[in-house]
Amino acid sequence: MKRMTCFQDDFTVKTNKVKEIILITDQVADVVKRSGIESGICLVYAKHTTSAISINEAVDPSVRLDLVTAFNHLSPQLEQYRHMEKNSPAHVLASLVGPSEAIPVRDKALFLGTWQGIYFCEFDGPRIRKVCVQVLG
Amino acid sequence: MKRMTCFQDDFTVKTNKVKEIILITDQVADVVKRSGIESGICLVYAKHTTSAISINEAVDPSVRLDLVTAFNHLSPQLEQYRHMEKNSPAHVLASLVGPSEAIPVRDKALFLGTWQGIYFCEFDGPRIRKVCVQVLG
Amino acid sequence: MKRMTCFQDDFTVKTNKVKEIILITDQVADVVKRSGIESGICLVYAKHTTSAISINEAVDPSVRLDLVTAFNHLSPQLEQYRHMEKNSPAHVLASLVGPSEAIPVRDKALFLGTWQGIYFCEFDGPRIRKVCVQVLG
Repeated sequence: MKRMTCFQDDFTVKTNKVKEIILITDQVADVVKRSGIESGICLVYAKHTTSAISINEAVDPSVRLDLVTAFNHLSPQLEQYRHMEKNSPAHVLASLVGPSEAIPVRDKALFLGTWQGIYFCEFDGPRIRKVCVQVLG
Repeated sequence: MKRMTCFQDDFTVKTNKVKEIILITDQVADVVKRSGIESGICLVYAKHTTSAISINEAVDPSVRLDLVTAFNHLSPQLEQYRHMEKNSPAHVLASLVGPSEAIPVRDKALFLGTWQGIYFCEFDGPRIRKVCVQVLG
Repeated sequence: MKRMTCFQDDFTVKTNKVKEIILITDQVADVVKRSGIESGICLVYAKHTTSAISINEAVDPSVRLDLVTAFNHLSPQLEQYRHMEKNSPAHVLASLVGPSEAIPVRDKALFLGTWQGIYFCEFDGPRIRKVCVQVLG
């Protein structure tokens, strides 16, 4: 049994469209590597209310496009919405997908599945956003 | 590197409507403060099957109302449902939004974004519910 | 204050239908028990891009069936989808429900609510899948 520690770092993501999904696996893996933590949990967290973190198929980019299509379908602009900024559909998606993902850390690396990658999702862009990574172990 | 510890505490939330979203940021921040933990992860967990924890826009209360509108739209009462208690739409929302959120802890405080607040969501109220907070770091 | 540790183990889940939800509470509870960890966090993680982990009503099996009904309703096969494998509806559900759940650990056990159980959800089966459990505390 070794002593536990907490390592943290942030990075910036720039989106160019209204809704966009960007792969951030490499940036997160780099923080885990620099942490030197052998086993534990890596928390990836978006500090924004119209964005989210998700994990899904990383190889075929059309999965990301299909997810954007599905998100538009799932969260339309409803007539009853009252929020003045008119971006309630983006807030709804932020709550459905969620602001964070926790991933196991094993052998000093992210323990992702073969096809899994980490996504940063923006639902009300374009924006410059911050992603926080917290590695505990 | 300091020794790690785990601090835990609970609090109660009372809802008054069938579907209601209540801000609990202050209660969670208080547990983190009392933990004395400098950096780590704070897990906020709802022990109920028709409720959820979410993070979203905390300033304009109309965002919470719009989320309730969206949740009604997303999870209607379907004819095929078989569950005898007739609250399957609430169970569906509990699985979509999820029973917990994990938030980074830095400098002995929740590391939330400027506009982010922590929500307790009840989808089959009114109820008196328990929220568990686990701070690790 | 005791020293913290991280305990990890995996188990396999076999699904038999296209969409299926299977209770895995006992398997996860067994890992937590073997960890000997008194208090902390248990992360349950699915390493696959068409599956998810959820927490919901464990007693009445019709809740699981109703959730499958709701998932079919929420994520239909849309004409605009481009992904060649034709399983985009399953990827969408994987992102909505999410690949993991974190549960408080207290008194050397999962701190679940009375009616809560842990679900493994497969949206593009039948499959043989791996579930990873990481206990930190």
